[in-house]
Amino acid sequence: MSFTADILTLYPQMFPGPLGISLAGKALQNDIWSLNTHQIRDHALDKHHMVDDTPAGGGPGMVLKADVLARAIDAVSPANDTRPRLLMSPRGKVLDQQMVRDLSKGEGVIIVCGRFEGIDERVIEGRNLLEVSIGDYILSGGEPAALVMLDAIIRLLPGVMGSDLSEIEESFENGLLEHPHYTRPRDWEGRKIPEILLSGNHAAIKDWRFEQSRAITRARRPDLLNGVNKK
Amino acid sequence: MSFTADILTLYPQMFPGPLGISLAGKALQNDIWSLNTHQIRDHALDKHHMVDDTPAGGGPGMVLKADVLARAIDAVSPANDTRPRLLMSPRGKVLDQQMVRDLSKGEGVIIVCGRFEGIDERVIEGRNLLEVSIGDYILSGGEPAALVMLDAIIRLLPGVMGSDLSEIEESFENGLLEHPHYTRPRDWEGRKIPEILLSGNHAAIKDWRFEQSRAITRARRPDLLNGVNKK
Repeated sequence: MSFTADILTLYPQMFPGPLGISLAGKALQNDIWSLNTHQIRDHALDKHHMVDDTPAGGGPGMVLKADVLARAIDAVSPANDTRPRLLMSPRGKVLDQQMVRDLSKGEGVIIVCGRFEGIDERVIEGRNLLEVSIGDYILSGGEPAALVMLDAIIRLLPGVMGSDLSEIEESFENGLLEHPHYTRPRDWEGRKIPEILLSGNHAAIKDWRFEQSRAITRARRPDLLNGVNKK
Repeated sequence: MSFTADILTLYPQMFPGPLGISLAGKALQNDIWSLNTHQIRDHALDKHHMVDDTPAGGGPGMVLKADVLARAIDAVSPANDTRPRLLMSPRGKVLDQQMVRDLSKGEGVIIVCGRFEGIDERVIEGRNLLEVSIGDYILSGGEPAALVMLDAIIRLLPGVMGSDLSEIEESFENGLLEHPHYTRPRDWEGRKIPEILLSGNHAAIKDWRFEQSRAITRARRPDLLNGVNKK
C-alpha cells in the first residue's frame, strides 16, 4: 500500500538516480514508496523496435508513436487504475506545492517521459494523460522533470521527514517565501546575526520572521502575494 | 574552453546521474561541457566535520554554516571567476527559457546545492550568490534542481542538438506553447490525423500550427500571451 510510481521512459537507467540517495533513497529502502521503470521500446512490435516516426505535415524532429506508447501504458496501468497518468511536458499544468501535496495523498503516479519533438496528440487524449510542467523551460526529455516531481512528492509522504515541523515553515507552505536563516558564528567576516534572533523573545522572533518573509516575497515575487498563481 | 559546471553539494554521488546518459551524457563524453563536483563537508575544519548548526532564534531543522560553505566556494571559484554563482532555492529568481539561453552563452556556472532548513543568509550576501528557483515547490535539496537546470542549459550548447531547427519551434522559444504533433498511423483507435497535415500545403500547415499554438496557450497559459513572465 505504499506510494507507487510507474515510469515509462526510453531511459530507465536514469532512475532512481538522485532518488536512490539521501531522503528519497532511504524512503525507497524503507518501502515508503516504490518505483517501477518500464522501457517504452519493449512495446514496439516491428522488427526494428521503432518508437518514433516523422511528424505528419513535416518539420524537424521525431514524434513518439501513439500505438507504441498506448501499449506501454496499457501494460502498466489497467483501465481501473486510480492513479493519475501524468505526461511531463512544457505545455502542461504548472506544478506547484498544492499539486505536490495532492499527489502525495494519492496511491501513486504513472509518469510518461517524452523525448524527441513530442508525442502523438491522440495518445494524450486516448489514454487520459494529464500534462504537467515543472517550469517554463525546455528539457532534453521528461526524465529530469519526473525526478524533480517525485522528489517533491516523496518528502511529503508520511514517515519521510524527520520533523513534521520542518515542512510547515518552509517556502510556499504559507504562501510566502522563507525568511533568512542564521547560525553560529555570531560574527562572520564582520557580518552579524540580527540581534533580535539572539534575544530569546520568541514572540518577537516569530513576528520578525513573518515580516521578513512578507518583505522578501513582496520584493521578489509579488505575484505570490496576490495569490494569482496559488489556490 | 568548454562550458564548465562546478557543483557544491553534500551528495556529489547524485551527479552526473541523468546527465551522464543520452543527450547530456554524449555531450559530456565529447567535452562539450565538463562537470566537477565538490563535497562541502571537506571544508568543515572541526573534528566532527560539522557542516550545519541549529538556527539562531530557534525553530526546526538545521542551517548550513556560512564559514564552511564560504571556504568551499572560495576553493572552487576565485574572486575573478566570471561564472555566475547560483544557489538553487525556492526563494530565487524563477528559471525560464530566457535565463537558460543566457546561461548557455556563458563560460559555465557554480551551483551551490543546499539541504537542511536553509543556508546562513550571510554567505549568500558575502559570496554574491544568485538564488535561482526552478518552480514553486519544495525539494529535498538543491541537487534535483541543479540537474534540471543543467539539462536545459546543455541542450542549447553548440553541437549538442542534432538539428538547430528542432529547437526553434519548441515551446517558449516563440513565447507560445507547442502545437499538437501526429505521426503514423493515419487512423489510430478511430482517432485520425487532422486532414490539413496530410494536404501537402506547407503554408496552410504552418498557419494551422500557429493557430493551434495560440489556442493552446490561450486556454492553458494566458499569462504567457500577456508576456508578463517573458522578455
